[in-house]
Amino acid sequence: MQIAIVLFDRFTALDAVGPYETLGRLPDAETVFVAEQAGPVRTDTGNLALTADRTLADVPAPDIVVVPGGPGQTPQMENAALLDWLRAADATSTWTTSVCTGSLLLAAAGLLKGRRATSHWLALDVLGRFGAEPTGERVVTDGKYVTAAGVSSGIDMGLTLLGRIAGDDHARAVQLLTEYDPQPPYDAGSPEKAPAHLVEEFRGRSRFILT
Amino acid sequence: MQIAIVLFDRFTALDAVGPYETLGRLPDAETVFVAEQAGPVRTDTGNLALTADRTLADVPAPDIVVVPGGPGQTPQMENAALLDWLRAADATSTWTTSVCTGSLLLAAAGLLKGRRATSHWLALDVLGRFGAEPTGERVVTDGKYVTAAGVSSGIDMGLTLLGRIAGDDHARAVQLLTEYDPQPPYDAGSPEKAPAHLVEEFRGRSRFILT
Repeated sequence: MQIAIVLFDRFTALDAVGPYETLGRLPDAETVFVAEQAGPVRTDTGNLALTADRTLADVPAPDIVVVPGGPGQTPQMENAALLDWLRAADATSTWTTSVCTGSLLLAAAGLLKGRRATSHWLALDVLGRFGAEPTGERVVTDGKYVTAAGVSSGIDMGLTLLGRIAGDDHARAVQLLTEYDPQPPYDAGSPEKAPAHLVEEFRGRSRFILT
Repeated sequence: MQIAIVLFDRFTALDAVGPYETLGRLPDAETVFVAEQAGPVRTDTGNLALTADRTLADVPAPDIVVVPGGPGQTPQMENAALLDWLRAADATSTWTTSVCTGSLLLAAAGLLKGRRATSHWLALDVLGRFGAEPTGERVVTDGKYVTAAGVSSGIDMGLTLLGRIAGDDHARAVQLLTEYDPQPPYDAGSPEKAPAHLVEEFRGRSRFILT
C-alpha cells in the first residue's frame, strides 16, 4: 500500500507529520512525500524544510492521498497541476484524506461536493462555499474521504484511519509507541474552549488569510 | 531569542516537529534546525528527511536547545562531537530541553545528574543509569531543564515552555491556531492505559532498541 503525502510551499509541518507518524506506521506500507518538484519544500514559518522525495508525476496512483494545509494552500487553490493530480489520484485511491486547510484543496478539485467534511475552524465557511457540508468535528469520514480539523488533528485522523485499515490493536500499539496520551497545559484548543477575545482576534484576521 | 532543534540520522520526526510547531511560535524567536552536517537528515522510517539549515558549529550558543529522540539516538550516545556541542550550548542556554530519548543524550552529556527528568516510557530505566532521577510524568521541569516523554509529548512540552516564556495567553493562542484539542480514537497512550499484551511485547523488544 502506498501513502502519498503532498507538500507545497508554506505548508504547515505538523499537518503532514501527524499522519506520517501514525498512519505511516501501517504495516507493509510505503510512505512517500511528493511535490510538484522533488527536493526541499519550505514550511509556513520559513524555518524548516521537508524533502519531497518524488514528484507528483512519479506517484500517479497512491492508495492513500494525504493533503496537509497551511497558509500556502491559498495560491494552490488555482494550481491546475496540483488540482489535476488530486483528481487523477483520487480516481484510483482507496482513501483520500486531508488535514487543516488541505480540505480546501480537495474541495477546489471538486472532490468534496455534497460530502460532510471538516477543516481548520477558521476555514469552515470557505469549505462550504466549495460545495462541501462543513462540520465542526475533529475527524470526519464520508465514504473514502477522511478530513481532519486544524494542524494537530492529523494525529487523531491518522490513528483513526490506521485502526480502520490495520485493526484497533495495531493503532493502539502506535498510540503507545508515540506515547500519545495528550496532557495540554491549557484547554484552549477549539473556538468553543478558547478565550473569546482570542477567537475574535483570529476571526478578524482570517479574511486576510483565507480567501 | 534563538531556538536550536538538533537533528541526527534516524531521529523521530514528531519529536522535533511538536516543539517546532508550538515553542517555535515564540514571538521574535528564530528557530534553526542544526546537525553535524547541514542538509537533509533522514528520520527513523527512512521515508522523510528534514533539512538541517545550519551545522552545530554555526549555532554555538542558542537560547533554547531542543533535542529530539528516536532509534538513531543510540549511536549518538558515543558521538563526542554532539555531546561536546550539547555541553557547550548548555553552558550558556536559558533552557535545555528534550523529547523522548533525546533526554538520554542530555544525560550522556552529563547534564541531568541528580535532576528529575523523563523520557520515552521504554527508556526511563536507561535514563536512571545515567544519573538522572526518572519520573513517569509527561513534561518535567527541573531548573532550566525541561524533558518530555515519548514522541507526541513534545507538543505538550512546547506549549508548557511557550506559556512560561511568553505568557499563558500567547500559549493559548498557539493552542487555538494549531487546534490542539486532542481526541484520540483509543485510550492506549501510556503503559498504564494500553492493553497489557502490547506493553509486554514492547518491553520485550526494548532491550534490542535501547542500550
